[in-house]
Amino acid sequence: MAAPSPNVATAACIRMGADGVSSSVDRRVAVERPIAIEINGIGYAVMMATPCDLDDFAHGFLQSERLIERRDEVIEIEPLLLDAGHLLRITLQAAAAERVQARVRHRISDASCGLCGIENLEQALRPLPRVTADSIAQPEALFTALAALRDHQPLNRETGAVHAAALCASDGAIRLVREDVGRHNAFDKLIGAMTRQGIGWEQGFALLSSRCSYELVEKAALAGCPMLVTISAASDLAIARAAEAGLPLVMLARADAMLWLDAQ
Amino acid sequence: MAAPSPNVATAACIRMGADGVSSSVDRRVAVERPIAIEINGIGYAVMMATPCDLDDFAHGFLQSERLIERRDEVIEIEPLLLDAGHLLRITLQAAAAERVQARVRHRISDASCGLCGIENLEQALRPLPRVTADSIAQPEALFTALAALRDHQPLNRETGAVHAAALCASDGAIRLVREDVGRHNAFDKLIGAMTRQGIGWEQGFALLSSRCSYELVEKAALAGCPMLVTISAASDLAIARAAEAGLPLVMLARADAMLWLDAQ
Repeated sequence: MAAPSPNVATAACIRMGADGVSSSVDRRVAVERPIAIEINGIGYAVMMATPCDLDDFAHGFLQSERLIERRDEVIEIEPLLLDAGHLLRITLQAAAAERVQARVRHRISDASCGLCGIENLEQALRPLPRVTADSIAQPEALFTALAALRDHQPLNRETGAVHAAALCASDGAIRLVREDVGRHNAFDKLIGAMTRQGIGWEQGFALLSSRCSYELVEKAALAGCPMLVTISAASDLAIARAAEAGLPLVMLARADAMLWLDAQ
Repeated sequence: MAAPSPNVATAACIRMGADGVSSSVDRRVAVERPIAIEINGIGYAVMMATPCDLDDFAHGFLQSERLIERRDEVIEIEPLLLDAGHLLRITLQAAAAERVQARVRHRISDASCGLCGIENLEQALRPLPRVTADSIAQPEALFTALAALRDHQPLNRETGAVHAAALCASDGAIRLVREDVGRHNAFDKLIGAMTRQGIGWEQGFALLSSRCSYELVEKAALAGCPMLVTISAASDLAIARAAEAGLPLVMLARADAMLWLDAQ
């Protein structure tokens, strides 16, 4: 018997059937917690996430926020469990800490100098780096990975409504998976886990269980991901941003067919 | 023939079948845009959303952010379409404008006085008002609404991957629906539409096509919603917060059965 997971809780429910029959059931649900990210003593953000793989989450979040450029800029991550939630107390090297302070100063000047909505809007979509890595994965590999994904989602199998982000080899073998109630967090955890373990994309691809928002494209481009595959649909902005970054995108990846978008 | 919707775009794709057959297809996808919210000249936030029903969105967002207490605190909402996205230029009455300025000052002092992660965490889950309205909806009404919801989701039918938030009468009749690529935005749009049209909950319920995060419970409690029904699962935090607020929650609402959580 496995020990109870800190990422699963049990809710006492009444099951109401459409046939009029009701019964008491205990349903497993995913845990969601506030995760505060403190960098060199400064409270940077609070994210709502499933509190597993928090070291991976911290690394991926720092990369996606463009606060670190290399793994060794992270000196220490100290996870603390408090009454109100989880605290990730992060210590960064001087150059990265300066980036954090510049970001925070920017926020203060935005707020205190009365930056208007037009200026906010112009900052919302930052330029993305061009993806230079190639994926050699063929459609068969994507169908292989898709068929295997469910077996790599233990939390989702137990609770439902949990997203997965998977690193897949070019032949479709699933190499690493991370889960979270939030799709953005799941992808940050995967990216952070790859960095921490020194694993590259190696001409493979990322497979996400979610729809494809523009933010997932942004994270993929920043992580140098050579191909992004999502089970649900992409937004028009995600498609446009992927094309800008030269990131091949595949959406609505289902057992019978997938839709490929040209990166050019 | 209806005019082309500004909320739907067309993506040229290659459909790769699992049978090895490929073909060119044009797929409709949902539009996602940065929406900057400017209040009395101050850039308050940028949200990623589907740019329909933006007046409703503005009202609902202001309520969910606890920036307005009454509809007439909103003097004007001027939506502007710019190259970089949409700008909602909002003018609030003095009392509400003071709330906005207090919030912005708070952010500045958080950032500039080095509020640490523990303090951020303690502010993350604000106390919720107690829900005092009752829903008289019986399980049959929920099944009725669920069966009818699809017919009220024109954007989702065309593009997929779009969420809906519906106001349902106590007999399950769907009275009002709003759609968005984001589940939080869809609910804000519904809440704002109800406020603008002067429609109350009238012992009915809210039906959301999504999973139930704690933020949706927060929005429901602030809007005085008497019962929240979601098609996918709730997180443990959403369940705990709903119980605190006295908000009846029904999750995993499917055609064959639903799970009811006691509000006490």
